[in-house]
Amino acid sequence: MTATTGRPSRRGRPGHDRADVIRVGVQLFNEQGYDATSVADLTARLGVTKSALYHHVDSKEQILQIALNEALGGLEDALQAALGHPTADARLTAIVDGAVRVLTERLPQVTLLLRLRGNSDIELAALERRRRFDHTVTGLVREAQAEGLVRADLDAGVATRLIFGMINSVVEWYRPDGPVDPELLGAEIRTVALDGLRPRA
Amino acid sequence: MTATTGRPSRRGRPGHDRADVIRVGVQLFNEQGYDATSVADLTARLGVTKSALYHHVDSKEQILQIALNEALGGLEDALQAALGHPTADARLTAIVDGAVRVLTERLPQVTLLLRLRGNSDIELAALERRRRFDHTVTGLVREAQAEGLVRADLDAGVATRLIFGMINSVVEWYRPDGPVDPELLGAEIRTVALDGLRPRA
Repeated sequence: MTATTGRPSRRGRPGHDRADVIRVGVQLFNEQGYDATSVADLTARLGVTKSALYHHVDSKEQILQIALNEALGGLEDALQAALGHPTADARLTAIVDGAVRVLTERLPQVTLLLRLRGNSDIELAALERRRRFDHTVTGLVREAQAEGLVRADLDAGVATRLIFGMINSVVEWYRPDGPVDPELLGAEIRTVALDGLRPRA
Repeated sequence: MTATTGRPSRRGRPGHDRADVIRVGVQLFNEQGYDATSVADLTARLGVTKSALYHHVDSKEQILQIALNEALGGLEDALQAALGHPTADARLTAIVDGAVRVLTERLPQVTLLLRLRGNSDIELAALERRRRFDHTVTGLVREAQAEGLVRADLDAGVATRLIFGMINSVVEWYRPDGPVDPELLGAEIRTVALDGLRPRA
């Protein structure tokens, strides 16, 4: 975009842009674990030099930070959208569907988020954002209990964890090129969470 | 126990037996990731020399193998016990309750199992054992569908994954010294999985 030099706006070697570096970084973190992945692993997988890598990102930590922002930002946006619905029922439905959509659309980034151990400030800050998200969702569940939409004999926190246990398990087996339709999956998870596996009489 | 020498039968330094080495090893693997944990990390945490560590175990891999056997052995035993029940309903109930019991009783080992990435032969073999377990449980779900106990419009494999998504999420938040009773937790997960969160009319 800089007409004076004619250089492309993306930095670094041709064939790799910043998005590639982040995508490959997240892939490696998910394969080996973040702590076990070195900058040398990143350059080897990308087939670039260290200095080419540093054209795109400042550090391994920055790749982690960007990926976690994509995961958490998606979940937070879905929650904001859900909170805009007029009834507790619609809000609960919207957050389940929205979270499943974010998981299937940003699978590698959410996988990374769910496997965090909290071994650095970036990880601890991400876990804290995730806790705030869970806390707000627990509020939605509690509200649904107060309106008689969800059984009141369950602890709202445990219920939230069980719903998100189902949702989050999707990262373990869902594949974008697999046979399961992500829209249907959202509806199935919602049905199982709300109505259970047994046929209703 | 050997009267001739007076040495205790457990090997290595006093204050650490083999069970301690395995317990601390699993703890470190869960904190840092298996790949990122070195033998030096193990000896530092235990406060023993490398040679003292090798009194107890042959290798880092052996600690992993023993822990995965405890997790998978527990789940397989629970499945065998469940298969002995006379009805599909009782079999499904028994495997959900049994799996929750194994998770809460062998939390660190199951946590390790669930975070495996398949980066070594030991990990691949454990993942294959886990797949066989899942396959047999999917058969139980399919059987329950055939008897009208579980909705037939859900794919049995997806239903099994969602149930175990709930069960396995327990490793993320259950703490043995926390307020949640493990027996009640099994019943709650079973209730949510089978009857859902909505009150039945």
